[in-house]
Amino acid sequence: MRPVYLDNNATTRVDPQVVAAMLPFFTEHFGNASSMHAFGAAVGGALKTARQQVQSLLGAEFDHEIIFTSGGTESDNTALLSALETQAGRDEIITTSVEHPAILSLCDHLEKSRGVKIHRIGVDSRGCLDIEAYRKALSSRTAIASVMWANNETGTVFPVETLAELAHEAGALFHTDAVQAVGKIPMTLAKTEIDMLSLSGHKLHAPKGIGALYVRRGVRLRPFVRGGHQERGRRAGTENIPAVVGLGKAAELAALSMNDEQTRVKALRDRLEAGILASVGNCMVTGDVDNRLPNTSNIAFECIEGEAILLLLNKEGIAASSGSACTSGSLEPSHVLRAMNIPYTAAHGAIRFSFSRENTEQDVEQVLAAVPGIIANLRAMSPFWQGDGQASADFNPTYA
Amino acid sequence: MRPVYLDNNATTRVDPQVVAAMLPFFTEHFGNASSMHAFGAAVGGALKTARQQVQSLLGAEFDHEIIFTSGGTESDNTALLSALETQAGRDEIITTSVEHPAILSLCDHLEKSRGVKIHRIGVDSRGCLDIEAYRKALSSRTAIASVMWANNETGTVFPVETLAELAHEAGALFHTDAVQAVGKIPMTLAKTEIDMLSLSGHKLHAPKGIGALYVRRGVRLRPFVRGGHQERGRRAGTENIPAVVGLGKAAELAALSMNDEQTRVKALRDRLEAGILASVGNCMVTGDVDNRLPNTSNIAFECIEGEAILLLLNKEGIAASSGSACTSGSLEPSHVLRAMNIPYTAAHGAIRFSFSRENTEQDVEQVLAAVPGIIANLRAMSPFWQGDGQASADFNPTYA
Repeated sequence: MRPVYLDNNATTRVDPQVVAAMLPFFTEHFGNASSMHAFGAAVGGALKTARQQVQSLLGAEFDHEIIFTSGGTESDNTALLSALETQAGRDEIITTSVEHPAILSLCDHLEKSRGVKIHRIGVDSRGCLDIEAYRKALSSRTAIASVMWANNETGTVFPVETLAELAHEAGALFHTDAVQAVGKIPMTLAKTEIDMLSLSGHKLHAPKGIGALYVRRGVRLRPFVRGGHQERGRRAGTENIPAVVGLGKAAELAALSMNDEQTRVKALRDRLEAGILASVGNCMVTGDVDNRLPNTSNIAFECIEGEAILLLLNKEGIAASSGSACTSGSLEPSHVLRAMNIPYTAAHGAIRFSFSRENTEQDVEQVLAAVPGIIANLRAMSPFWQGDGQASADFNPTYA
Repeated sequence: MRPVYLDNNATTRVDPQVVAAMLPFFTEHFGNASSMHAFGAAVGGALKTARQQVQSLLGAEFDHEIIFTSGGTESDNTALLSALETQAGRDEIITTSVEHPAILSLCDHLEKSRGVKIHRIGVDSRGCLDIEAYRKALSSRTAIASVMWANNETGTVFPVETLAELAHEAGALFHTDAVQAVGKIPMTLAKTEIDMLSLSGHKLHAPKGIGALYVRRGVRLRPFVRGGHQERGRRAGTENIPAVVGLGKAAELAALSMNDEQTRVKALRDRLEAGILASVGNCMVTGDVDNRLPNTSNIAFECIEGEAILLLLNKEGIAASSGSACTSGSLEPSHVLRAMNIPYTAAHGAIRFSFSRENTEQDVEQVLAAVPGIIANLRAMSPFWQGDGQASADFNPTYA
């Protein structure tokens, strides 16, 4: 059975060109970048090149605005904790109810352990931010506002440029978790007021275990991981050269394929979505369809369990996701769909299909051939499905 | 010119078998371990195997005592910060004056920013800990004592089992930064009272960017990186599967080569050391020669600059180190040799030769052929060298 991978928002295949770029740095140019000999010197240039490749993808002004980290979660932790330390007299954080756990769990912790006031701004049924509530939450107490560039489950894109300007009007810093946006939509950070941005390598065909935090020049940063003087004293720990080189190469490849992402990949996604909507009743696309990542489709199928759909898709060789991989294990619908107030009967059956440049028309055909039968079979077994396109009246759960 | 790499305490070459073990996890089994499909399932078993391989190398009782991190520095930060949070009513840390910057920088920060009292226990001229001072510093205020298993510069091994017992008598936790010891000397953590232990992959022929924190079962841990539920909620962030697999394989290989390390590698080190002492005057081996890592030799050459020696060694294709790579850039002698009160005139010319299982007799011959000439040339140019084996009376610097 031919495997079809449509879970690229969870993680991507490392591009073979990225692996090839990394390989010499494991066994040949393996020196410590801080060492005073040929083995160390050989990697210094590679580090600089990679920093410039990431800078270029982000449209940042300076390469030293890029700090390499172990991934998106560490970048997010660094940004928020640093802001609380550097923004004297400001002890509030503004974020959204649909952020990744890397932001939400940290905020929950800061609220409980340190009494930091967290404003979690809500979204409407399309997942769009309540800008008025965001504006009202900003004050002279706000240390930082952190809003994702694009949502990992629905692909909904947030107006981060505007949100950054509003934050600055209140004297707050602005951070964006752009883990899902980087490499999928073009960006020119130099022309925005965004102060900090998190990205993760493994979401853009670089390896796991590497990420970056963009910190605009002039924004003070307190290190999160403390120790040696690596990354200009902003992130301690021996530089992960092979992974950094891989991230640089992946950034270069993402820039080259940006047009493909915006056209061919988007067309594949749209075709899958239209095909499913045409062949399956009682399902809906969630998120802001007019303002979405080009690669993401989140479809909620009424009256069945997303986990069951995934298992049957898996039997057909198709990998997709319900909610975020980072929150799997929970039986509740995702916090994102709950925040959007998607009806429980639908949210429970939500499936995310997330594409990458590696997907093909054949992938779409294979999914379209499988989905209608899977949904029909599951609904036939569902005690809550009446066969007339309506959920049983007995099935009327609500959110806890 | 044949390269000779004798800087294995800074970083090691990734073993080709480790690279081979990692490769399928970049482009084939690339799933997110948290994903509910075949791509995710394929990596779950690999994660468990790697955890068991590390457990086995450490002689730990349970595989879930191993938490994967981004490296030794993160592990160290996690251990100390967690102890301060979990040890209610205890706000002091005991450590040594010769720890790695991952511990010392963090402690400096905690002292300045939070008023945590830090006891930095000194060492004697051989680098051995002042046990009496350690014992006296322990009290009902001690949250954690953190003492490295072996020093990165001199290789001196500390009696961590005893120190752990003493810490427990005072109700304190005990952590050891074993980054330099793991893989070089045998350990059976299950038979010790050590609560936490840090290790780093790239010091034992695994890649950079991966490490682990051993946390004895029953010891509470507060996560350092917060977000998703990975690593049983103890370390957030998508599991770095290829690197974890690499670390597991490297742990297996280290266990297999432990005997080689204790015999052949040690003999190479001893031969280099004896050869240099026999052919070069006015130099001394630093550290506790009776109680050292088998792979490390730190030799201090009087009246010349370590950096100059390194540059000339590098011209001969030989990679070694002065002090720690993580503290290079400073012109002062290393904090370790200063703490040992090694005379300034010698400490300034200290060179660390650190071996691994990849070194050969030919490497030793090449270094022995180069060193006497290099030292003689540098001393001939030194205004502080009088040619009679004595430093000039004009040259009498002291530590700042």
